Amino acid sequence: MEYKFSDRVQSLKPSAIREIFKYAADPTVVSLSAGNPSPDAFPAKEIAEISSRLLSENPIAALQYSVTEGYTPLRNFLTDYMKKKHNVGSTDDDILITSGAQQIMDLASKSILNEGDVVICENPSFIGSLNTFRSYNARLVGVPVESDGINIEKLEEALKNEKRAKFIYTIPNFQNPSGVTMSLQKRKALYELAKKYQVLVIEDNPYGDLRFSGEFLPCIKSLDDEGIVIYSGSFSKVISPGMRVGYAIAPKEIIQKMVVCKQGQDVHTNIWSQLVCHEFLTKYDFDAHLERLREIYKKKANFAMDLLDKHLAPKITYQRIDGGLFIWCDLPEHVDTGKFCMDAVRNKVCVVPGTAFMANETDVTHSFRINFSTPTDEQLQRGIEILGQMAKDL
Amino acid sequence: MEYKFSDRVQSLKPSAIREIFKYAADPTVVSLSAGNPSPDAFPAKEIAEISSRLLSENPIAALQYSVTEGYTPLRNFLTDYMKKKHNVGSTDDDILITSGAQQIMDLASKSILNEGDVVICENPSFIGSLNTFRSYNARLVGVPVESDGINIEKLEEALKNEKRAKFIYTIPNFQNPSGVTMSLQKRKALYELAKKYQVLVIEDNPYGDLRFSGEFLPCIKSLDDEGIVIYSGSFSKVISPGMRVGYAIAPKEIIQKMVVCKQGQDVHTNIWSQLVCHEFLTKYDFDAHLERLREIYKKKANFAMDLLDKHLAPKITYQRIDGGLFIWCDLPEHVDTGKFCMDAVRNKVCVVPGTAFMANETDVTHSFRINFSTPTDEQLQRGIEILGQMAKDL
Repeated sequence: MEYKFSDRVQSLKPSAIREIFKYAADPTVVSLSAGNPSPDAFPAKEIAEISSRLLSENPIAALQYSVTEGYTPLRNFLTDYMKKKHNVGSTDDDILITSGAQQIMDLASKSILNEGDVVICENPSFIGSLNTFRSYNARLVGVPVESDGINIEKLEEALKNEKRAKFIYTIPNFQNPSGVTMSLQKRKALYELAKKYQVLVIEDNPYGDLRFSGEFLPCIKSLDDEGIVIYSGSFSKVISPGMRVGYAIAPKEIIQKMVVCKQGQDVHTNIWSQLVCHEFLTKYDFDAHLERLREIYKKKANFAMDLLDKHLAPKITYQRIDGGLFIWCDLPEHVDTGKFCMDAVRNKVCVVPGTAFMANETDVTHSFRINFSTPTDEQLQRGIEILGQMAKDL
Repeated sequence: MEYKFSDRVQSLKPSAIREIFKYAADPTVVSLSAGNPSPDAFPAKEIAEISSRLLSENPIAALQYSVTEGYTPLRNFLTDYMKKKHNVGSTDDDILITSGAQQIMDLASKSILNEGDVVICENPSFIGSLNTFRSYNARLVGVPVESDGINIEKLEEALKNEKRAKFIYTIPNFQNPSGVTMSLQKRKALYELAKKYQVLVIEDNPYGDLRFSGEFLPCIKSLDDEGIVIYSGSFSKVISPGMRVGYAIAPKEIIQKMVVCKQGQDVHTNIWSQLVCHEFLTKYDFDAHLERLREIYKKKANFAMDLLDKHLAPKITYQRIDGGLFIWCDLPEHVDTGKFCMDAVRNKVCVVPGTAFMANETDVTHSFRINFSTPTDEQLQRGIEILGQMAKDL
């Protein structure tokens, strides 16, 4: 039989970085290409305790069907917590528990995008989200990221030109892949532009709690007095990604549509995981846990940045980061990034070429992404030393 | 801000049965409207044991990011198991672990359906799947279900007329909601027609292991020598629905597209749940567990059918079932089904009007669905007695 696929998936190709990731599976290759939390960062003991309690005291609650909107006590807790801690959410908003933040991108896209609609995104941006937008046949319009966040003039230009723009997708804190944090001024400017052009904002904030230096900056959603921001939160980096628990805080009307789509997508999010998150947030010291994570990542990030300073400078440069899991390294302009990354993998270190994160295949970048949370210190050292040797030869 | 939603969700309305379900939440109302496994049917002790072992021996494996395709040992086990036990799957097929079988409907739809394409389904059929197809703006064409399954002549008529038919959606065993099991002859005829018209089949089999009487019948997928059947399996009815673990066995090319869509939808299925299912399937006596479930449901189904015989005959009739969780009751033709179900809920028993399960809102039905797996025996007795009183007054 000859299979006929939908128009929307016919153009989706296995991504170019897959080829490189194949090498990353080789145990002799140091992988700096992942985005996994550090194995030290899991509250494994606490999760084991909670799970054991749940499954002995009231197993059916953890194993039976549940409601699409999410476990009500978890929704209520998060609504209060996000309001008090971040001024995120209003009485016009509602909250939906999702199967990871990735599902928020899918449900928002499904609810809002028609084929050919435009998503304005930072360039570079998180490939997972970009691929979701692409899977609904959206057209991506990339706006350059500067050292303090998205270029506001070019954002306005895009909003002016793109009549079919439906939302602006942004990761304001420790952006994946660039590591950049958007300044307060730019957060306000982005919000005002979204309001002026009546375009929704998806604020994706998986790393917000992982700030280990610099000053806390308010979420764009905390400025939202008009109901134009869909806030995307996640427990993947602060509790466990394998559990797949995220949450969207957004205007009620939008959440309603997302709930209908989620009903048809997975009925509800794994309820055991929702119960575990709720217990961990309410019966343990979550703030102390976050503090511990910040210490872990601060140490690892500084270790990585010291190695970069020592081995990669001056030919390969990077911008220091204040949080998150990624560092964005810039090659000299004459270097072919794709070739450099392929050479790196042959030299037994795997990094992700910047092209993977661009809104359009033809967008030029001279950067690559490294991750410091997954590898051990020894692996980081070995990997960056190899890159350093390659830098010398450029 | 005035929200503009996508064309595909603009027409999706909260379903008509939601109004009735609101009453079902009232604790004084006996709900025969759910579809949950019986609380007795969970291997709760075993899951607690497995989980405790997993989370103490290798917690990171149960909590870290995993691969989109699913946990490899679980995929390998299921591939062998389904081949040996049901002759399901060939070397041209692949397997994908999903977040419940519901996600199979979404991923298959997303991969295959363009807006306006046709899905041919049994009429009535499972509302959850129908709504997923609708959410991709598919047009549903319903083919009547008879006592031995779909009407084959009308199926061929539909295949002949509907040039945009992309797949036939069928639940051959103990269909939800009709309780009907498709005969072997009709399974073969359906497969031959699908082949003749080169239309894919989605075979949804959540209840197959819950046969408590009659003879086992082979899956349609076991006939599939041409790669036209997408088999949908689920652990929701035999281990735990709250875990959200299902699996699709389908031609490799189709699975590849579904994997790309899943990557953008939830990255992967909760990995703790996948590990738990794998351990339960491989280290415990799964067959003995299924035997225990069949005993539970046989007892409950016979109890319910005895009550129906006693209280509802002769005005309300039904077809005896050999498995599954549902019984389909037929009202006299002069009775308004919607009104009857609303009256029932006012009398403190909640059943689902057949209209909820029809391919098109205007399709006529004189039936309602009752579920016997969720209520206690006392609730079943009380609920059916109330319906019996109403039957007398018809």
